[in-house]
Amino acid sequence: MDSEQRKLALALIQQALPDLDWTLQATKVKRLSRDFHWFSPILKQQLEDKQADAVVRPRNEEELSLVVKACVQHQLPLILRGGATGNYGQLVPLQGGILVDMTGFNQIGEPGNGVVRAQAGSRLAEIETITRPTGWELRCMPSTYRLATLGGLYGGGFGGIGSINYGPLGAPGNVLSVKVMTMEAEPRILHIPAPQALLLHHAYGSNGIVLEVELALAPVHQWIERLDVFDDFSDALDYANAIARSPGLVKRQLALFAAPIPTYFTHLNGHYQAHQHAVISVIAEESEGVGSNLLEKYRGHSAVRQSAAEARETNTSLMEYCWNHTTLHALKIDSSLTYLQTAFNYTNYRQQIIDMAALFGDEVISHIEFLRDNDGNITASGLQLVRYSSEERLNEIMVTFRDNDVKINNPHVYKIEDGKQGEIKSEVVSVKKSLDPNGLLNPGKLRGWEVRDTLVLNNDPLLLTDR
Amino acid sequence: MDSEQRKLALALIQQALPDLDWTLQATKVKRLSRDFHWFSPILKQQLEDKQADAVVRPRNEEELSLVVKACVQHQLPLILRGGATGNYGQLVPLQGGILVDMTGFNQIGEPGNGVVRAQAGSRLAEIETITRPTGWELRCMPSTYRLATLGGLYGGGFGGIGSINYGPLGAPGNVLSVKVMTMEAEPRILHIPAPQALLLHHAYGSNGIVLEVELALAPVHQWIERLDVFDDFSDALDYANAIARSPGLVKRQLALFAAPIPTYFTHLNGHYQAHQHAVISVIAEESEGVGSNLLEKYRGHSAVRQSAAEARETNTSLMEYCWNHTTLHALKIDSSLTYLQTAFNYTNYRQQIIDMAALFGDEVISHIEFLRDNDGNITASGLQLVRYSSEERLNEIMVTFRDNDVKINNPHVYKIEDGKQGEIKSEVVSVKKSLDPNGLLNPGKLRGWEVRDTLVLNNDPLLLTDR
Repeated sequence: MDSEQRKLALALIQQALPDLDWTLQATKVKRLSRDFHWFSPILKQQLEDKQADAVVRPRNEEELSLVVKACVQHQLPLILRGGATGNYGQLVPLQGGILVDMTGFNQIGEPGNGVVRAQAGSRLAEIETITRPTGWELRCMPSTYRLATLGGLYGGGFGGIGSINYGPLGAPGNVLSVKVMTMEAEPRILHIPAPQALLLHHAYGSNGIVLEVELALAPVHQWIERLDVFDDFSDALDYANAIARSPGLVKRQLALFAAPIPTYFTHLNGHYQAHQHAVISVIAEESEGVGSNLLEKYRGHSAVRQSAAEARETNTSLMEYCWNHTTLHALKIDSSLTYLQTAFNYTNYRQQIIDMAALFGDEVISHIEFLRDNDGNITASGLQLVRYSSEERLNEIMVTFRDNDVKINNPHVYKIEDGKQGEIKSEVVSVKKSLDPNGLLNPGKLRGWEVRDTLVLNNDPLLLTDR
Repeated sequence: MDSEQRKLALALIQQALPDLDWTLQATKVKRLSRDFHWFSPILKQQLEDKQADAVVRPRNEEELSLVVKACVQHQLPLILRGGATGNYGQLVPLQGGILVDMTGFNQIGEPGNGVVRAQAGSRLAEIETITRPTGWELRCMPSTYRLATLGGLYGGGFGGIGSINYGPLGAPGNVLSVKVMTMEAEPRILHIPAPQALLLHHAYGSNGIVLEVELALAPVHQWIERLDVFDDFSDALDYANAIARSPGLVKRQLALFAAPIPTYFTHLNGHYQAHQHAVISVIAEESEGVGSNLLEKYRGHSAVRQSAAEARETNTSLMEYCWNHTTLHALKIDSSLTYLQTAFNYTNYRQQIIDMAALFGDEVISHIEFLRDNDGNITASGLQLVRYSSEERLNEIMVTFRDNDVKINNPHVYKIEDGKQGEIKSEVVSVKKSLDPNGLLNPGKLRGWEVRDTLVLNNDPLLLTDR
């Protein structure tokens, strides 16, 4: 469908649904069609001219259902938008269409027994505001928790803060079920329990419209946020690793930043020197004593220390310097930087981190996040900063990482499979066949859909007949 | 000092301290000088004639101090007794003396922010009764928590229920500090923070009198206790291992019992068949869904399911079938059994468990406990049951385990070092030199003390001058 046909269809839809909350002004639509994919100079260029034809913000399921019906009738693409904090063009409409702002779906259920159910447009921080007084918090969340939505995290997130305990968001047990609306002429609403629910996770909203997510929660601790600095990189690494590997030291977040990354933290960098490496940790109050012993052992110095409760009140949490926030702080200072996403091997990540840092010198700067993998192993992943010269060189760097047995989840591509070593489970495509049979959810995003005739697809990937 | 000299000294002490709570009747003293070392036919024989000359139960530090002074004055051995639930003769006086029943020291402090301080004679279950309403429970405890004391756990325990999350009790962060009384003519009371505090851990009360322990706690969950059964051993193993290795599945306890061990559980064995293997798990209510998926995957069947709260009320917790309770239940049915303590390698424990089970057939029956090690790795340890034939054969079996890269912590010896691969840190002996310079705390228990002239000892192992 070309641009003119889409405009005509859109005009008819708007005429039919005048009471919906539409945004039509071109510059606004353009702005709303953007996320943080500009972290990648490659995506920035590739997605430059991609945008929606209009934005709509449904206030309830009934309104959303009207939009879905209209899009199916006119075969117009529909794309979901949460907090727009993604980094891979998750919400960028590849072939135009209607961008659905989901932030109107922000009801959060009563938490009970370590579980909460919330609508997809709920901000993660809002969910914690509801659950914290009951003694629970989120198990995994991105550093963008203040703006990011639950649906956006589910659609495109991996894990983040808390993954040092619970692994990735997709590890069994973290997500209990989802509620979805199908992209059909008569939209259906389905409740899908785990593990089938995970077939809609990390599919960037391309195979179903997630309305609600039911999450298992983590018990609240009195967290202390710390930034500690080290003159020597391997001391910083060993300190962070000792925290990671101490089962009696309770933590929520742990990241290592090689110099000069800490200098990019403009609100903090008065507390340390430019040549110093930093470790940000969020540890339980009762574990601070062990932390202090380790800090002394590895010749570190305390630069910032605050309670998480204080930090929340003043909006100065150190968690907002971790994960992809690091990249954001760096880019604000030096727009020639970009980044990688790497997964070290759990059996020898310490040596791999040292080797890769040595191999690239100043060109690739270590930003390491510690976490548990899907099998419960403690390991490390990297969101290294890269001094960008060309696409060729960036790809060369990624090849070198792979050659050294470090996995790359390429953040410079916008097709789902390209970010995942080129592959996706055929069930993810089967789900799209069931829930979006016309392929209207952000067409172009899921390569498996385009080549679906070559795949063996399951007719009932969600095992819905069983339930 | 021979028996006659000890009796004379004792008579003088009793004369001087008539108001203390003494037990002198020979059969009672003999009974109080026993723990569960009879799990081992070898220890049973070796410790047969070992016992105290008298038992005293001090009501406060003042009374304890009087006993200590008297023992030092008369050079009479002093031995500490908690709940008497140990398995290695921890409390058995090797050279007579006064057995000090510590259960009068049962004050438990107000828990705060994930920490509690309690006197050494406090029962572990009582500590939880105090902490649970504040949202906290013990991080690591033995299956004997109803009778076992905090001091006994600290003196001779390793870990247990909860170690799947927090590792061994000795992993940094689990114990925050201890308060000790020295065994001197003028007893001193010292506060020793971690990590130095750990030099008194697992020394069986041989290098200081622990009065109080400060513990970090774990957040309470709504736990569900399950016993699931399997026709196939490797299915049971893989189910347990999948639970162990799922970071999103929150658990507190996880153990595997090869047939016919479940038949020894006489209050439960109506729920399954004699040929079946069992897994006992204590998992969070919010994780039950994942557990059910795994149970189906590995062809298991639910035999017992109850909430931990119900189980507490009725004193029927499945936790009392795990760790060394398994051995107790088995010995009640078949007194010819004994057991091992093995530590598998975290890199290949699954295969080692299968190989060792195959190697010994019915002679060594798998009882496997899952836990985190000191470095946070998920691993497995064994408390295998052994059909005992002779001491030689038992030693042969242990050698075979060691030859297959499975560590043995020998539970058939009573000297501390012999249970620990023959070695102990010299600092543990240095501590005894500081806190028990006359070597009166259960002489004969710590071989390092006997050969101390050959060790390089630190004059200030507790770094007390620093504090």
